[in-house]
Amino acid sequence: MLQISLSPESGVPLVDQIVHAIRGQIEDRVLRPGARLAAIRQFAENHEVSRFTVVEAYDRLVAQGYVQSRRGSGFYVANRSLPASNPHPAPIASAAVDAAWLMRQALDAGAEGLRASAGWLPRSWLDEEGLRRQLRAMLRDEGSNLGDYGRPQGYLPLRQHLPFKLAELGIAVQPAQIVLTHGATQALDMAVHHFVRRGDAVLVDDPGYFSLFGLLRLHGARLIGVPWTPEGPDAAELERLAAEHKPKVYFTQSVLHNPTGACLSPANAYRILQCAARHDFHIVEDDTYCDLHPGITTRLAALDHLDRVVYISSFSKTLSGNLRVGFVAACPAITEALTNIKVLTSLATPEAAEDMVYRMLTEGHYRKYVERLRNRLGEASARTLRLADKVGLAPFIAPQGGVFIWTRIPGVDDAVALAARAAQQGIILAPGTLFRPQGQASPWLRLNVAYGGDVRLERFLGEALDAQG
Amino acid sequence: MLQISLSPESGVPLVDQIVHAIRGQIEDRVLRPGARLAAIRQFAENHEVSRFTVVEAYDRLVAQGYVQSRRGSGFYVANRSLPASNPHPAPIASAAVDAAWLMRQALDAGAEGLRASAGWLPRSWLDEEGLRRQLRAMLRDEGSNLGDYGRPQGYLPLRQHLPFKLAELGIAVQPAQIVLTHGATQALDMAVHHFVRRGDAVLVDDPGYFSLFGLLRLHGARLIGVPWTPEGPDAAELERLAAEHKPKVYFTQSVLHNPTGACLSPANAYRILQCAARHDFHIVEDDTYCDLHPGITTRLAALDHLDRVVYISSFSKTLSGNLRVGFVAACPAITEALTNIKVLTSLATPEAAEDMVYRMLTEGHYRKYVERLRNRLGEASARTLRLADKVGLAPFIAPQGGVFIWTRIPGVDDAVALAARAAQQGIILAPGTLFRPQGQASPWLRLNVAYGGDVRLERFLGEALDAQG
Repeated sequence: MLQISLSPESGVPLVDQIVHAIRGQIEDRVLRPGARLAAIRQFAENHEVSRFTVVEAYDRLVAQGYVQSRRGSGFYVANRSLPASNPHPAPIASAAVDAAWLMRQALDAGAEGLRASAGWLPRSWLDEEGLRRQLRAMLRDEGSNLGDYGRPQGYLPLRQHLPFKLAELGIAVQPAQIVLTHGATQALDMAVHHFVRRGDAVLVDDPGYFSLFGLLRLHGARLIGVPWTPEGPDAAELERLAAEHKPKVYFTQSVLHNPTGACLSPANAYRILQCAARHDFHIVEDDTYCDLHPGITTRLAALDHLDRVVYISSFSKTLSGNLRVGFVAACPAITEALTNIKVLTSLATPEAAEDMVYRMLTEGHYRKYVERLRNRLGEASARTLRLADKVGLAPFIAPQGGVFIWTRIPGVDDAVALAARAAQQGIILAPGTLFRPQGQASPWLRLNVAYGGDVRLERFLGEALDAQG
Repeated sequence: MLQISLSPESGVPLVDQIVHAIRGQIEDRVLRPGARLAAIRQFAENHEVSRFTVVEAYDRLVAQGYVQSRRGSGFYVANRSLPASNPHPAPIASAAVDAAWLMRQALDAGAEGLRASAGWLPRSWLDEEGLRRQLRAMLRDEGSNLGDYGRPQGYLPLRQHLPFKLAELGIAVQPAQIVLTHGATQALDMAVHHFVRRGDAVLVDDPGYFSLFGLLRLHGARLIGVPWTPEGPDAAELERLAAEHKPKVYFTQSVLHNPTGACLSPANAYRILQCAARHDFHIVEDDTYCDLHPGITTRLAALDHLDRVVYISSFSKTLSGNLRVGFVAACPAITEALTNIKVLTSLATPEAAEDMVYRMLTEGHYRKYVERLRNRLGEASARTLRLADKVGLAPFIAPQGGVFIWTRIPGVDDAVALAARAAQQGIILAPGTLFRPQGQASPWLRLNVAYGGDVRLERFLGEALDAQG
């Protein structure tokens, strides 16, 4: 007979207690594979619980793979050593691997890893309690859809709300021009599907968002880097490259640009749109860091009215990276094409998550919460600039907001060696080479300001740069 | 002064009452754009509520776009007529539009539309109460991740559980070989990215899953249809097509095949794997309808041990299409490549949704629930076969389970005219042409058995086929 003591008064459901106890005995090898569990009736009598309780506990153990049911014979401890699988060759090489590698490393970093170059805020900065509150509200709302597929363009109330939000940025758009997406990343993938064919020349920011570079390479694009200045893309260089390469599209980030944190100036914006018109290319404007900008700034979509510009944004940086809610807004013809691509590549996006974002945006606290985030980022940015100054890193600019400080390591051509040493100490730094379209060497380093006050980072940079200088 | 009466005793929070009342007056044009709302202090005094309550209500109205705040001046009714956007050309044509069109129509069908050909179960058949229960449990669990990005391969506990589930199907796999995806559709998209380049010949089932055809066309594949028999693909024809077209990959559904409902026979499975080895192509086996099969059946992945076979499945048909949780299992090298593609095209999948699926699978009721679903589908299938017999539609087979009956309209070459007439009456039928790789004419029709007892469908088919015969 199993040595299990149950406490009906403990508050823990009896089923949970039985499952926990038997699982423990299996894991401790007290109960070995093949051993027969007590019959349901017998277990119920021995422990003075109902048979129903035992049936449910055994069922759960079966579902969890700890126990097997043999029809007519009873329940047996399963052999949990997984069947061996056959040997396989080493991972194949891929042109897109570098960007994916860094993303995977950052996403995979355990609690102990320091994501000093991550592209997003630490979980503790987010309003998870607000998310829980809205999830509870959604659960109370019997009408909310948890089971059925969502509509092709996404949850209608959120699509109806976004035009008001975008109007504040000067972007005029109707709900019918908006497609909700699985984060900004799916929106970018859809835009690449729409605009890019294998071998096409595509303009990108240099430096720019490495995950976009990986995505474009995956689709076979030839990347043409447009040098980035503190006022946005170098317009003269853009003109020259457009004339030479005849691109169909330019992917850019005009606000709190990743990795430099710089914003497009109004005069520059006008020149870029003129260039796009002259050379007949589209612009995909990725405004992922939108809500982290504290003031008024220029967006191409606001000037162009979604004629040549496709506008992408996301709630991953302010509300939740986990929910995976972003959107794309475009002219009706491109919206139609992007919706088809969305349906073919992902069928639909989860309305439950979109409903959550809608509730977070409209229940009234979002503005205040984002204001607090911006203030906190402002302080963290100042702290990180002081750190850079102290250890001898030279910043590209002092950004107006957002998550990044782009800093140059003095006296070296490439930051890779430093990043490799950091990785050995569990500190994930993103070296500049990753942000260059052809992976050219770069002495720059992207820092996430949320980690600018971390003593491990300060100690590492102090020692590493001191040893080098 | 606003004519608003508040009921502090009603149970509805005062903030909600104020928001509701003011919004109503704005929508009814009692309050017109530009009108100034009462100052916060004044409103609070007039209605005997706290200023905090008024601030929160006004904030919410601002967030919802009904009201604008002018610094230092107060709150004004916003001009809610959206800014006009500029005129645009008509939607562009796309080779992939037909499949996307049907999916969009099915996903967009309102409550009144009859999705008589849908590829999934009606929402009312799903265990939404179970989903709510698990969501509540997840909310109580403080450790559950709502804010942060998920890991690249997906939520670990679910990946650790799936091998036990797959072992019951005879498929040997380690958690490290599993990548969780945004439904089976993202898994298919990742596989297409991995295997297919523009212009490549790709083998598909004929008839087969139209949304896959659209996805493959989007990636520029040349589709080669392998005729499908009641025992699975025609092996002799497969041999001939493989020799002629030298494909790199064959996408197939071996269990409860969409649209025919047929299953692969063991002897046929062996011949197909031999053919794949001889002509050196991979097989992507889409087992989306897996859990709806009531008995034991053959899967290529079980025979091949994920050597040449990439295995895809999903929980969209049994648990929720809204959660968007599926997975792909492959050999380590392909798993590595698919993970990179996943990160580049979508960054990560939502762990919260994956946690929900994990809880649904392991809390012990899943088996019983699925058993009930299967029984219900069995009855619905019998009913739909009787309907077919009554109206004169000839079924391809009487399937062993699942969602589909594939029926032939006698005396016509193409089912499109019938489907078009049905659509006029709000009945969505999927004509056979959609399921053919080149959109060839087809007298077949896919029926979803859940709607086989609907009187509107019976009446329509009875009249339409009678008029024709």
